[in-house]
Amino acid sequence: MQWVKVLGGVVGAAALLGLGIIVGHFAIPKGADSPAPSASASQDLDLKILETVIEQLDANRIRENLRELSKEPHLATTPRDEALVQLLLQRWQDPESGLDSARTTEYEVLLSFPSGEQPNRVAVVNSTGAILFSCRHSEENLTGEQGGPNVVPPYAAYAPPGTPQAVNAAKYGVAGVLVYTDPKDINDGKSLPNETFPHSWCLPPSGVERGSYFEYFGDPLTPYLPAMPSSFRLNSDNASGFPPIPIQPIGFEDAQVLLCNLGGNLAPADWQGGLGCDYNLGPGFRSNGIFPEDGQVNVSVHNRLELRNSSNVLGIIRGAVEPDRYVLYGNHRDSWVHGAVDPSTGTAVLLELSRVLGTLLKKGTWRPRRSIVFASWGAEEFGLIGSTEFTEEFFSKLQERAVAYINVDISVFANATLRVQGTPPIQSVVFSAAKQISAPGSSGLSIYDNWIRYYNRSSSVYGLVPSVGTLGAGSDYAPFIHFLGISSMDIAYTYDRSKTSARIYPTYHTAFDTFDYVDKFLDPGFSSHQAVARTAGSVLLRLSDSLFLPLNVSDYSETLRSFLQAAEDLRVLLEQHGISLGPLVTAVERFEGAATAFNQRIATLREGTPDPLQVRMINDQLMLLERTFLNSQAFPEERYYSHVLWAPRTGSVATFPGLSNAYSQAKNTGHEPAAWAEVQRQLSIVVAALEGAAATLRPVADL
Amino acid sequence: MQWVKVLGGVVGAAALLGLGIIVGHFAIPKGADSPAPSASASQDLDLKILETVIEQLDANRIRENLRELSKEPHLATTPRDEALVQLLLQRWQDPESGLDSARTTEYEVLLSFPSGEQPNRVAVVNSTGAILFSCRHSEENLTGEQGGPNVVPPYAAYAPPGTPQAVNAAKYGVAGVLVYTDPKDINDGKSLPNETFPHSWCLPPSGVERGSYFEYFGDPLTPYLPAMPSSFRLNSDNASGFPPIPIQPIGFEDAQVLLCNLGGNLAPADWQGGLGCDYNLGPGFRSNGIFPEDGQVNVSVHNRLELRNSSNVLGIIRGAVEPDRYVLYGNHRDSWVHGAVDPSTGTAVLLELSRVLGTLLKKGTWRPRRSIVFASWGAEEFGLIGSTEFTEEFFSKLQERAVAYINVDISVFANATLRVQGTPPIQSVVFSAAKQISAPGSSGLSIYDNWIRYYNRSSSVYGLVPSVGTLGAGSDYAPFIHFLGISSMDIAYTYDRSKTSARIYPTYHTAFDTFDYVDKFLDPGFSSHQAVARTAGSVLLRLSDSLFLPLNVSDYSETLRSFLQAAEDLRVLLEQHGISLGPLVTAVERFEGAATAFNQRIATLREGTPDPLQVRMINDQLMLLERTFLNSQAFPEERYYSHVLWAPRTGSVATFPGLSNAYSQAKNTGHEPAAWAEVQRQLSIVVAALEGAAATLRPVADL
Repeated sequence: MQWVKVLGGVVGAAALLGLGIIVGHFAIPKGADSPAPSASASQDLDLKILETVIEQLDANRIRENLRELSKEPHLATTPRDEALVQLLLQRWQDPESGLDSARTTEYEVLLSFPSGEQPNRVAVVNSTGAILFSCRHSEENLTGEQGGPNVVPPYAAYAPPGTPQAVNAAKYGVAGVLVYTDPKDINDGKSLPNETFPHSWCLPPSGVERGSYFEYFGDPLTPYLPAMPSSFRLNSDNASGFPPIPIQPIGFEDAQVLLCNLGGNLAPADWQGGLGCDYNLGPGFRSNGIFPEDGQVNVSVHNRLELRNSSNVLGIIRGAVEPDRYVLYGNHRDSWVHGAVDPSTGTAVLLELSRVLGTLLKKGTWRPRRSIVFASWGAEEFGLIGSTEFTEEFFSKLQERAVAYINVDISVFANATLRVQGTPPIQSVVFSAAKQISAPGSSGLSIYDNWIRYYNRSSSVYGLVPSVGTLGAGSDYAPFIHFLGISSMDIAYTYDRSKTSARIYPTYHTAFDTFDYVDKFLDPGFSSHQAVARTAGSVLLRLSDSLFLPLNVSDYSETLRSFLQAAEDLRVLLEQHGISLGPLVTAVERFEGAATAFNQRIATLREGTPDPLQVRMINDQLMLLERTFLNSQAFPEERYYSHVLWAPRTGSVATFPGLSNAYSQAKNTGHEPAAWAEVQRQLSIVVAALEGAAATLRPVADL
Repeated sequence: MQWVKVLGGVVGAAALLGLGIIVGHFAIPKGADSPAPSASASQDLDLKILETVIEQLDANRIRENLRELSKEPHLATTPRDEALVQLLLQRWQDPESGLDSARTTEYEVLLSFPSGEQPNRVAVVNSTGAILFSCRHSEENLTGEQGGPNVVPPYAAYAPPGTPQAVNAAKYGVAGVLVYTDPKDINDGKSLPNETFPHSWCLPPSGVERGSYFEYFGDPLTPYLPAMPSSFRLNSDNASGFPPIPIQPIGFEDAQVLLCNLGGNLAPADWQGGLGCDYNLGPGFRSNGIFPEDGQVNVSVHNRLELRNSSNVLGIIRGAVEPDRYVLYGNHRDSWVHGAVDPSTGTAVLLELSRVLGTLLKKGTWRPRRSIVFASWGAEEFGLIGSTEFTEEFFSKLQERAVAYINVDISVFANATLRVQGTPPIQSVVFSAAKQISAPGSSGLSIYDNWIRYYNRSSSVYGLVPSVGTLGAGSDYAPFIHFLGISSMDIAYTYDRSKTSARIYPTYHTAFDTFDYVDKFLDPGFSSHQAVARTAGSVLLRLSDSLFLPLNVSDYSETLRSFLQAAEDLRVLLEQHGISLGPLVTAVERFEGAATAFNQRIATLREGTPDPLQVRMINDQLMLLERTFLNSQAFPEERYYSHVLWAPRTGSVATFPGLSNAYSQAKNTGHEPAAWAEVQRQLSIVVAALEGAAATLRPVADL
């Protein structure tokens, strides 16, 4: 509650300011671009509103949302996906609990589906071509939800059609790929029907993980352009990023039949798994197995590329004071099958959060300082398509105005602990939120204190803190952070890693990812869902309502130090090639100094009665810092990746990705001068970005 | 005078606001990031201050500045160039008339100079190699200023060394190039010593135009990176953009000897000039001339590439209310020789303007709302190097905060009329300024009314108005508009085209561009200098002090309409290749609608008492509109060019440059499908940019 400070600070104008606050609070102006009068411009986060929101987020409503969202398969662009578009629109337009406005945006995007007429097929054939064994075309209908026309058969999206035949063609160039999930990796070794779903959370033997095998993200035919019907499209024959050969995923039940009968040498120990046999490398079947030694595996893939209309749904709460600053909160809507966990646990939380905020809004109790944009993205499973097209369509506007992007995709992987991935500036707001909320269960711990038990690190600044992970490209935050340079995060509840080594929850992307799976095994009582809703809701409210944006730019310093420390391992070889780390060391020091001084200026301002424009100026520096790390020239080969700190790192040294990759390349290519020149180029790019970042944080009239 | 409105609007707070204005006006806070209290945040441009500035800009002081600046040659990075750096620093740090702060930034850049030991040479030789004729190595010392070690001999910067010999090698591949300026093009035909300088403003026979022949701009070795000593540099052997063959410029006196003795067929009528003979095409000399028919021209070029330290000087006036918004005003400092006209007429104005503003500042009479950044760029003549490196070093900061860039390079080409180049949004502020100031001379007209007599167009919106030209890459505005998307302009006084057809003022880039040349022929009395100082000063003050930025985004609509109109000529052929102009028409209409509605919202706000944050929000839209036209993917071959409306147009149709160029390419390459695909891609890029621009102008909570 910062009202007291405001009123105390300008005693002579108390009546005027008091009036201003009341106006800002209860009589929200209706004009689209009309923030409240300036008096309310000094209002800070209202802790009472925050408590109200946290209290009202209801576990049972989340459960009911999930039941509705996951009751039928809703693969991208199918009728049920479109029905959910309408459901979201209806919720966000509800007169009692809706937002200020909601709309859809539609893109025409290239998806990939199995043929309806010719099922993909994996079979063992003998030398005359007779079929000796066929893999399942669909998963076993264990709960009554695995059958019917809306359950898409297992397939590898964007894998090209073809009919390769071989057993192990590695020596002659691989002709096709079969993919399966081993019980050792997904089920902690369990593989029997009675120890798997519906008897436990484990993957049943017939379960098959669907997925997209497109290398990039976004619509494959319209890179860097929004996929409007009229947009320029690559010819799909020369679009890049598709797998070159047919791929088909199968269940471990079928994989066992193939793999346990392979001949040849024993595979390395690391490659052995939980199918109850030795895994051999081939080629050919073993002599004492169930197949003739010259039997072959025949794979028929009949996937088809199709242009489809995919919708995003956007819902907006207009900011009262700074409507041109956006806090975005999103999740995808599309699933592979029922998608109860992925993505509906996230969407169920999204709908409950938007309901609670919408209700406060419609009652006139609250309106955020900044605008809040809720988003339901389409076609994420095919490659983050809806979100990427959105960032392409509104590139300038988002770069200019977006404060942060909060992604809650799968909100609950398991019940043990919070798990957050994000860029360093979001650590502080997540910690503040997590400290305020009780963890589910009887521990009596806060979410923060529970979290630190599972994932922690020793910070040179703060001591022991929960560890925030980095953002890859696993969900819709990718275009926001990598393409637009918007501070982003992904929030979920997840595993106790001492209890399971499952790569991900076992029914991921299968037809067994259903409501009952969540309700019985993943989060009975939905208390973890509620914990995520509360945490993400608190983060959202803090970002939208705090006077000063709760982003701590100084928290980038630890990342830079660790990257710099790792770069020290390269020093000797770099110097042998005439490359100095000196400018990088200086740049990191300059960033640290500028960030520290910047935080001190904020602290000083907080002690006084800061002017709205002073606050805005500081907030612009906070908002735009992440943008300063973008360089569209840095990685010409990497579509969309332009953040010089978070681009994919393929080199083994955990330093700045461009440096790490170029160094690795130079070492591996026999030390060619051009390769070392690229190392120097990447170093200069990072130095320029860090110097630019420091310049952005310095007092604004210091050029 | 907007004070009355402010005081009238909030009667109850009149005392407080009145105090605030006084505080904002006289007691400037010293803290670097401390704007004045919010009350003064509503203050608009003070017309009295504006009048004071205009009155105090003194023609004689500009003349004295010019005398000092041009008294010695100051080629980039030479001691005199560095001495002028100190002069600028001293002026901007003057306790009575200086700015808040001034500093230099230094870059290590690749320049090109003639050899000190081996002069470049052009000679006619006979078949035994004996020299029959030599061109001058330097210009004739007509005024005592064309001699001495600091006058760089005529050369073509970045032309490689070499010794080609031929007369006309066109048929076998050109081996070298001689460049001269024909009296017909530069002197309205005059070529005799007694009708040229120092007897008139015309180019003397020995005058040679120096220049840079680098294809791009910026430091050639560090594209997209600031040229810090530690920065990655291309090897100059594989840097691109240098001429492939030797080039040497010569005077028309020498050109006459060579050209009037050429043999072969008569050159086309368009190629004939003012040297008093028929121009033939060669090859070889003519039979009845002064050279043997088998004589050859031998060219020896000994230019050398050198890494040199070049300085920019930056001077800052901190904004009182919005210090994080920058209005930039700059000119280059380096010349080829004395550079009285180019660039010192501009720098003389710059120094007078900064003196007048600095004096008001130091007296406490005035401080701008926004920060003003004065810049003196280095090494412009070699390819806009200082300004480009500046935009690379402060890329993010400038993109986020720069309101506009005002360039005044050559401020006076001639005495007839104002001439302005810029992007459409700057038209309105230039018109406002030009209407307020009297034109030099006895006409009694305003600068605006005088201007419209010389350069005008019929606007569908305004009727007859002066025509504002477009920005190419002829001076330091290029990186600001093309690379950063900052609204930019170039302001000068120029010719009466009914009186001269000279391509540019005749002594351009020669050793005859001296103080006396300006004082006697170009602007005796310096009234045109004063007119430019007043106009540019008024524009600067309006941009820095107006409550609402005086940029009219709606003025882009006329440009878009004219581009669209021109695109109609392509429609038939486009449609034959399946390309529709429909989405472009729609996008232009959407932009127009959004811009009109945006202007109406500003008009409505002006009628009330707008909140400082409302004003800031509108101003951010105004400032950032230009940025929405950037697309770093649009022109992969064009270094720095990313503005989809102002990139270089090589196609003949005066429409969107990407569309025009791709269309022309598709027509010229035999209608290949890939070429038409590029047309469609360019069309989609423009459509996406216009839709993005419209989205940026719409009410900020309409996503």
